[in-house]
Formats: sequence, C-alpha cells, structure tokens
Amino acid sequence: MAADKNIEEGLEFIPKFDNNGLITAIAQDSTTGQILMVAYMNKEALDMTIKTGFATYYSRSRKELWKKGVQSGHVQKVEQILVDCDQDCLILKVSVDEGQCHVGYNSCFYRAVNKTHPDALVFTAQKTYDPNEAYKK
Amino acid sequence: MAADKNIEEGLEFIPKFDNNGLITAIAQDSTTGQILMVAYMNKEALDMTIKTGFATYYSRSRKELWKKGVQSGHVQKVEQILVDCDQDCLILKVSVDEGQCHVGYNSCFYRAVNKTHPDALVFTAQKTYDPNEAYKK
Repeated sequence: MAADKNIEEGLEFIPKFDNNGLITAIAQDSTTGQILMVAYMNKEALDMTIKTGFATYYSRSRKELWKKGVQSGHVQKVEQILVDCDQDCLILKVSVDEGQCHVGYNSCFYRAVNKTHPDALVFTAQKTYDPNEAYKK
Repeated sequence: MAADKNIEEGLEFIPKFDNNGLITAIAQDSTTGQILMVAYMNKEALDMTIKTGFATYYSRSRKELWKKGVQSGHVQKVEQILVDCDQDCLILKVSVDEGQCHVGYNSCFYRAVNKTHPDALVFTAQKTYDPNEAYKK
C-alpha cells in the first residue's frame, strides 16, 4: 500500500513505464465492454496513440512500434484512455470492427479454464474472420 | 506472429509466466463488464485461485501471496477464468461488492487522460467507500 498521493489522487498523468520502458495497455470495446486484447506501449507508442487517436503498441517480439490493424485492417479508434491508481496500467476504450485477435476471433480471450479439469480449456467463442485472408501478403 | 499452434489453438492450459514467474491477471466485474483492477499471479497464486474460487494474487511490492479482500473485506468470487491467445494474460470474471480499489473507488481505473491536455487527467468516478475505515488496523 505504498502510496504516492500525487500519483494516486492527483490529476497529473505520470504513466509509470517498467524496467523495459513499457506499460500494460488493455483494449476494451467501448460499446460492449468486452476485453479485446492486452498489449504493451513504450512512451513513443503512447504518444502516437494520443496524437493519432488510433491504438499503437510496441511489439516485444518484433521490437518495433505497431499500429494495430496496419496489416489486417482491424484498427482500434481510441475513445478514451483510463489509467489505474498507481498509473502503471492503461485501458483503451476503443471502437472496432469484428475480429481483433490475429487467430481469427473477435477477442484474444476466446478460451476459459475448464472448471472441473483446470489443466484444460474450453472454447467460449467462434472465429469471426479468416486470418489467412487478412494477413496474406 | 510467432505462432505455437498448440498454445493458440489448443485446449491445454499452459499459462506462460514471465521471467519473474508472474502472469498478468485482469479482474473484470462479471455482471457489468467493468475492469476493476490489474494484478499479477505466480503459479501458487493461480493454483490457489482455482482451488478456492476466490482471487489470490502475488504482491510484487510485498513479495507475498495476497488474497484480495483479506484485509478490506472486498473479496473477488471467481466465476470464470479466460486466457488469451498466447496464454500470457488472464481475465478473472468476478462477483464483487462495491469498492475494489484501495484508494476508495469501485475500480482502480477512476481517471481518464484529458483529451485536450493529455498530460492531465480527469476523474471519471466517485469514491464508493472510505479506505481509512476499511484498512484501519
């Protein structure tokens, strides 16, 4: 409960980037409330997102800025950016078309832990588009 | 897009803990869809959560397991655990009472970035309880 009053109760936006210079960002459908994906931003990605109004992340695997949807067309128009109490996590409330996950689902969260066999998963959604079409060269 | 087909399309639960042994967990109100908080779990916390049905996290600051609500009373009954495509992030769909954030708000996300002055925040919620009461010794 180490509290920095200014960070938790103040109105200055002081995003806390981790040791790798990243902050966690959750994309949430502004209409349905569905959580679509979780990704990371460095300062440049956050600045770009604020400036352009479209979600831009930092790809940890490719080590580069990544405007969501630049290849698939599934962009995220940012309606609002929320920050949590210790300012180390963001929610982007976004307007989107269907199919935000590269596997073909609307959301990246398309499986749930099986309640009776917790080492297994169950599908909770169906694919909404063909990723082979969306991501073809 | 480095894809491990088994992880992304399979039904085996293989949570991917990071270099610190942690996985990101988002608590989302199962009724309203509101995102309440983001915290971290090590394997023990995840096992405990699955076993007990109540959210248990790993506190990075205190370096110990932390059953949410053990002090404040604001526990989280876990209805469902969702996992994302690459299995490095969880959503806990939870039933809760009001006031999940230690600052006194229902959600930790009670401020938004000011659209016209992005270095400033605006409050988007009001406190729902007095944390000084809830956390008094």
